[in-house]
Amino acid sequence: MRMHVRTTISLPTILAELRLDAQSQTPLYQQLYAAIRDLILRGVLPAGVRLPTNRALASQLGLARVTVASAYAQLRDEGYLVSRQGAGTFVAEELVTKGLPAIAPFHPRFSFWGQRLLTLDPSDEEALLTTPRPEIDFGFGRSFYHIFPYDVWRRLLARYLSADDAMLSRYGSVAGFYPLRAAVAGYLERLRGVQTTAEQVVIVSGIQQALDILSRLLLNRGDGVLVETPGYSGAIDIFRLYGAHIQPLPVDDHGLPVERIPPATTARLAFVTPSNQFPRGGAMPLARRLALLQWAQAQGAVILEDDYDGELRYSGHPLTALQGLDRDGRVVYLGAFSKVLFPALRLSYVVLPEPLLDPFLHTKRLIDRGAPTLTQAAVADFITEGHFERHLRRLRQEYGERRAALTAALDAHLAGRVRYSAEAAGLHVMLYLQNGLSETAVVERAARLGVRVYPGAPYHLQHPAPPSILLGFSGLTVSEIEAGIQRLGMAVRGE
Amino acid sequence: MRMHVRTTISLPTILAELRLDAQSQTPLYQQLYAAIRDLILRGVLPAGVRLPTNRALASQLGLARVTVASAYAQLRDEGYLVSRQGAGTFVAEELVTKGLPAIAPFHPRFSFWGQRLLTLDPSDEEALLTTPRPEIDFGFGRSFYHIFPYDVWRRLLARYLSADDAMLSRYGSVAGFYPLRAAVAGYLERLRGVQTTAEQVVIVSGIQQALDILSRLLLNRGDGVLVETPGYSGAIDIFRLYGAHIQPLPVDDHGLPVERIPPATTARLAFVTPSNQFPRGGAMPLARRLALLQWAQAQGAVILEDDYDGELRYSGHPLTALQGLDRDGRVVYLGAFSKVLFPALRLSYVVLPEPLLDPFLHTKRLIDRGAPTLTQAAVADFITEGHFERHLRRLRQEYGERRAALTAALDAHLAGRVRYSAEAAGLHVMLYLQNGLSETAVVERAARLGVRVYPGAPYHLQHPAPPSILLGFSGLTVSEIEAGIQRLGMAVRGE
Repeated sequence: MRMHVRTTISLPTILAELRLDAQSQTPLYQQLYAAIRDLILRGVLPAGVRLPTNRALASQLGLARVTVASAYAQLRDEGYLVSRQGAGTFVAEELVTKGLPAIAPFHPRFSFWGQRLLTLDPSDEEALLTTPRPEIDFGFGRSFYHIFPYDVWRRLLARYLSADDAMLSRYGSVAGFYPLRAAVAGYLERLRGVQTTAEQVVIVSGIQQALDILSRLLLNRGDGVLVETPGYSGAIDIFRLYGAHIQPLPVDDHGLPVERIPPATTARLAFVTPSNQFPRGGAMPLARRLALLQWAQAQGAVILEDDYDGELRYSGHPLTALQGLDRDGRVVYLGAFSKVLFPALRLSYVVLPEPLLDPFLHTKRLIDRGAPTLTQAAVADFITEGHFERHLRRLRQEYGERRAALTAALDAHLAGRVRYSAEAAGLHVMLYLQNGLSETAVVERAARLGVRVYPGAPYHLQHPAPPSILLGFSGLTVSEIEAGIQRLGMAVRGE
Repeated sequence: MRMHVRTTISLPTILAELRLDAQSQTPLYQQLYAAIRDLILRGVLPAGVRLPTNRALASQLGLARVTVASAYAQLRDEGYLVSRQGAGTFVAEELVTKGLPAIAPFHPRFSFWGQRLLTLDPSDEEALLTTPRPEIDFGFGRSFYHIFPYDVWRRLLARYLSADDAMLSRYGSVAGFYPLRAAVAGYLERLRGVQTTAEQVVIVSGIQQALDILSRLLLNRGDGVLVETPGYSGAIDIFRLYGAHIQPLPVDDHGLPVERIPPATTARLAFVTPSNQFPRGGAMPLARRLALLQWAQAQGAVILEDDYDGELRYSGHPLTALQGLDRDGRVVYLGAFSKVLFPALRLSYVVLPEPLLDPFLHTKRLIDRGAPTLTQAAVADFITEGHFERHLRRLRQEYGERRAALTAALDAHLAGRVRYSAEAAGLHVMLYLQNGLSETAVVERAARLGVRVYPGAPYHLQHPAPPSILLGFSGLTVSEIEAGIQRLGMAVRGE
């Protein structure tokens, strides 16, 4: 479409050189329109020049007259051409084309927020997706999706898909489809010990959306945020982008050591994973939970409880949520369906104390009207008809077997060389390397043996970080896990 | 579940008063667990107290021993109880329950962003949804969804629903499902004159998400933003929340009068609706478009082009986008499927110049992983298989008839009393009331006649705003429109 035209040649010659493509998906009149527009914008056809008549140009280019007439009409509609009664069609006089085109691409100035973003390490996640897959990948967050009852899910989706045009076409409530909020509230009360009404439950596109909204509502630049280290970088990155002063506290085998929070802390927000510390593992005992709530009362702080995989415990009962102990509404509870149903669902939920509910919804209404009603209706039925809890039981059994296989293999091949949390929970295990082993060396040696494991350094805010390796097991079979750990053992021993 | 227990009575009596509900969805052991937990947290069962044996409590409450054992086990797991070999089960000593429960609900301190949010008028949209529907509602943004080819849409969704588990379970790319981005790029080039590659197209949950991300990337508190008045409050609210200094310029019949931008403006961002000024109507002619680009070059400013309904013109050709004239990458193009397909789809797109692409995606990755792949795949097919353009033609015909009916009725019943844009485009008409008519009076009188029309004041940044009324017609039939305008005429004449 773009042409190279000598500017010294005559107008009929210029137009005769136009090359239109009759095979293109773009109609001929639009190709002609775009070509003439381009000539005008580049100054090749200067202001005031008279164009050939429809008839003349049509015969010159071998086009139908209606094609030329349509192109001229659009150019007139848009102000490139003017017609003067009896005199013909002219390039408009008023066009200000000098200064266009610019040569150098424009570089916008970024805000302080944007500048902080540019200093973050870009996630290498997309890069990983494009590199060749290793034989055995201990990636974290891969759901073992063959377990998911797709037949049930399809039936539930089809129920709404066929029944109801309105279900397809309506905007949902910004807080989420009410039956889903009620189903989530019921589930959380029953199985997670959360105290909530359906009204306090807001459906979000992901934990990240909830963190983003809460951060902007609660954080000014320079405000302190208490976080665990190692910790969840997805949250810490967001707090950083809002200019928060991150105050990391190293966790032990029982989560955040509340008694070691420095008395001088200025934190107004604490982000914690009490059910299963991410990524180290380990649950916060009751005494610490109560102490954390007391600390927050004294501090005037809000607590964000990320219960990202609280359902997934493989021995004993799932521990109930910190939120259930909260007596004055300072705990915000965050939960997700991505791990326990499937990632592409893109549905999470947040349970908000009353004073945060309206500001949260008002913010959400401004930036995102909510998830498709169809999906929400299907998930609501998935919960209320008992499929969800049945699926959870299945997940606990399958993931529990995988975790048991993983720890058995670790004990067989890496005894004495690594430490990890004894809590049988979650979808990954964090290995702390003993005896001065190097994390990078282990990752690289394992890769050469066809096994991808993940460095722990990005999760640690301590410098230097204790050498560690993250192993996700939810996307692997038992025999893959066993083979992978055997090879990891070889990598660690330098074989 | 919550009990009222006198604290002076003996332990066996307290426990005997527990009322469990065998009919509840919550298992008995969990009811017992929660009841005992509550007694401990409230200090009714103090630290160190010995509990009855499993057997004793089971027989006292008429429960199975395993039920009591499970409740005790969970209470032990969570640290409420401790067992001492041979001595029995005790309330844990270490619990710090003083200070709990708090009486007054906690009120978090809001950030400056949050405080600005609290000063915005909350949207009354949700309120409107719950008030009784008027007979005839000229609501804006209601799509005439009976036109939508649901049969085709169902077939496309079903295609992926049945074929491919991976399609259901995979995370999509944060930028959107690639075939959809390619389909949108092709469509925009063909029909909107946008210059873009598939890579520059990013799928977002809505225009609002794009505005939110761009604002945080580009705006510092106090930065100037040039906006049209009347204008799109959804955008202006977001700029305000980021602390921008809003610089409104009243539009005329041809959009933003670029020649009247004050030379002293500090705006670094301009938000414009050149194809069909929102909400007044009217298109920006070429000369003004070129002048706006020149202004932005001189100013170092980014232009946000909101082409919210550029496809919907009912006479002549759709005007091509401002973005197509941009030669140095300073125009960001925003488009949506909500108006032209159906609202619940929650898919929009943004075409980004190269330097903004990575920062935009990096931000989006942090806050939202993207729309369900299934829906995106179906929309991609809807476009590439020609359904979209066929549907657009149908919409243009149907909406064009409705707009013609509306203007004919206006001319019949309100001639001389209102002015409105002559451009046959869009899904609404903004009436400017003549002869000192009061906007509130007209809205109220119309409501009494069963017709809901919308005050124009919220769209104007001028004070006082010219009295005006917004009429959306996309959700009404021709006969509803005619009846509605006849009654509006009575309201205006004060009959």
